[in-house]
Amino acid sequence: MTGRSDPSVPSTPEAGTPPLPDEFAFIRRHFLALAGPAALGLADDAAIFTPEPGRELVIAADAMVEGVHFLSDDPPDTIGRKLLRANLSDIAAMGARPFGWLLTLACPGRAADPRFSEAWFSAFADGLAEDQRLFGLSLLGGDTTSTQGPLVLSLTILGDVAPGQALRRNGARDGDGLWVTGTIGDGALGLKVLLGDLPDQNGWLAGRYRLPSPRLGLHLAGIAHAAMDVSDGLVQDAGHLARESGLSVTIDADAVPLSAAAKAAGSREDLLALCLTGGDDYELLLAVPDNQARTLQTQCAAANVPVTRIGRFNAGAGEVHVSRADGTVFPLERQGWSHF
Amino acid sequence: MTGRSDPSVPSTPEAGTPPLPDEFAFIRRHFLALAGPAALGLADDAAIFTPEPGRELVIAADAMVEGVHFLSDDPPDTIGRKLLRANLSDIAAMGARPFGWLLTLACPGRAADPRFSEAWFSAFADGLAEDQRLFGLSLLGGDTTSTQGPLVLSLTILGDVAPGQALRRNGARDGDGLWVTGTIGDGALGLKVLLGDLPDQNGWLAGRYRLPSPRLGLHLAGIAHAAMDVSDGLVQDAGHLARESGLSVTIDADAVPLSAAAKAAGSREDLLALCLTGGDDYELLLAVPDNQARTLQTQCAAANVPVTRIGRFNAGAGEVHVSRADGTVFPLERQGWSHF
Repeated sequence: MTGRSDPSVPSTPEAGTPPLPDEFAFIRRHFLALAGPAALGLADDAAIFTPEPGRELVIAADAMVEGVHFLSDDPPDTIGRKLLRANLSDIAAMGARPFGWLLTLACPGRAADPRFSEAWFSAFADGLAEDQRLFGLSLLGGDTTSTQGPLVLSLTILGDVAPGQALRRNGARDGDGLWVTGTIGDGALGLKVLLGDLPDQNGWLAGRYRLPSPRLGLHLAGIAHAAMDVSDGLVQDAGHLARESGLSVTIDADAVPLSAAAKAAGSREDLLALCLTGGDDYELLLAVPDNQARTLQTQCAAANVPVTRIGRFNAGAGEVHVSRADGTVFPLERQGWSHF
Repeated sequence: MTGRSDPSVPSTPEAGTPPLPDEFAFIRRHFLALAGPAALGLADDAAIFTPEPGRELVIAADAMVEGVHFLSDDPPDTIGRKLLRANLSDIAAMGARPFGWLLTLACPGRAADPRFSEAWFSAFADGLAEDQRLFGLSLLGGDTTSTQGPLVLSLTILGDVAPGQALRRNGARDGDGLWVTGTIGDGALGLKVLLGDLPDQNGWLAGRYRLPSPRLGLHLAGIAHAAMDVSDGLVQDAGHLARESGLSVTIDADAVPLSAAAKAAGSREDLLALCLTGGDDYELLLAVPDNQARTLQTQCAAANVPVTRIGRFNAGAGEVHVSRADGTVFPLERQGWSHF
């Protein structure tokens, strides 16, 4: 983990045995406890590790921006974990197992934004430490810098997988069922709750917005023909699976599983469009042939992960059809979120 | 490479064979040409690659923020390359060879900042493509998102090295010489030139600020006991080598190599303090025993990389002494840059 030049804050000159420059002391204070042996004490230019022989490596990176992907008043312990879990969801979507991560942090200076106190960073790092234990990870490295703008986090996740066993988006076949883990829409509804636009009796929806559950540990190679995680909206992401596989997909809107909290937050009729397109779900979307449906259900039940069939792939070129149980078209004004 | 939700910009609904959502079309338009086979067309949740058997992997991440690490009016083709080269410098410092990278981009919306046109991104990606060819890399993945603040880039670099051959910061020994590649201070002086505070006849200094030269391809295992790259200021970074090695280091300020352009920009007396502490050098700092000095020089000459002995490691605990040729102490108000 390295520090980078910030022309606004020179470090102090030394006398005798020098103290660490502020940034390096800061990194050690908050992040050294997260570092595994490969991170070399966060004191070198890079981390070094020996990949497990005979495995393929899987790597992805995602960024999150305050005010776009999380709220300024989200608790600090959930902010880093949300990004970590979103990245873990990518690893889960590939059917891989995660082992390490790197984090860069562009943070408003404390003078400009007094939120970013020692206590804030302690809580931020404690949250990440908890997830490291939960998911069996270690921090490999990263960088901290200051910014005049909002907090920006970028996280790179590393995992591995047996050769040829990775799940891709482009493997769905005509006739495969479309399946989804967990429940859809909680994250989007949770954002509405946190913005004061929706009731949430027990905190479930807000919790799902802040702390998604990456669906790691399902052994889906040989069961699913294709997989991805739902981050930008179920309809749009199902479209990605269809497009990459050279098929169309039909989603039965009435089959899409909603949580008890989502059902309690309003009428299905009112909330369904948001659930189908809102994103921030971090559930797995799977293309599974009917002859593997039972195996999929057994596998997911063993892992205590709900799984629901919500549609079917057919011949086509990336079209997404969203229909009601009575066969009518479900009207949608959009499919999901896009940048630019 | 994935897109992430930006609540301000919904994608359009589809009719018939759907177009790609804007962000995904944007990613393919500008970044697909950079992607290697491992990136799976930037269309999946993660990249997959098979590490070369019997090698250790080296990984690092750095972020750069507009207005902190580069100027808002820097040419777009140099902005990404500066970050890539800073990361490559970390790989060089480990004695490793780079092969892949991931990039996340938090970018002001075009409506908010009309700088970020298609032409801007074309030039940005073209610069990166040029460096990919130069350094033998391929893009593995990444993410784009919008921000209300300045442009923030985060880059993760991957390389590999023969087992046990990586250079560390903690290996310097009492009596080792302190050596540095290239010239020191050009980046810091280049920033002054770009801010209008210093003349630069031929663009050399500004060029060094915008496009550092990572010192890859030197085979220093068995020659250098320790290495790092100079990013935050020569004096401070030499202090890191000393501290990690449990030694002190003495720098002969008068031996520190300055470029012809630096010498022409002002008197050595006026500029030396800035050169010693300004950072943005991305040269290698090496601890080399005297009996390897000749081999080091031969090796560097073969690679056409200047290398200069500028000091010595001694017993100590991280102290940095900066002296003149006449033995007096060189006065410094600071050692380098620090965040927070």
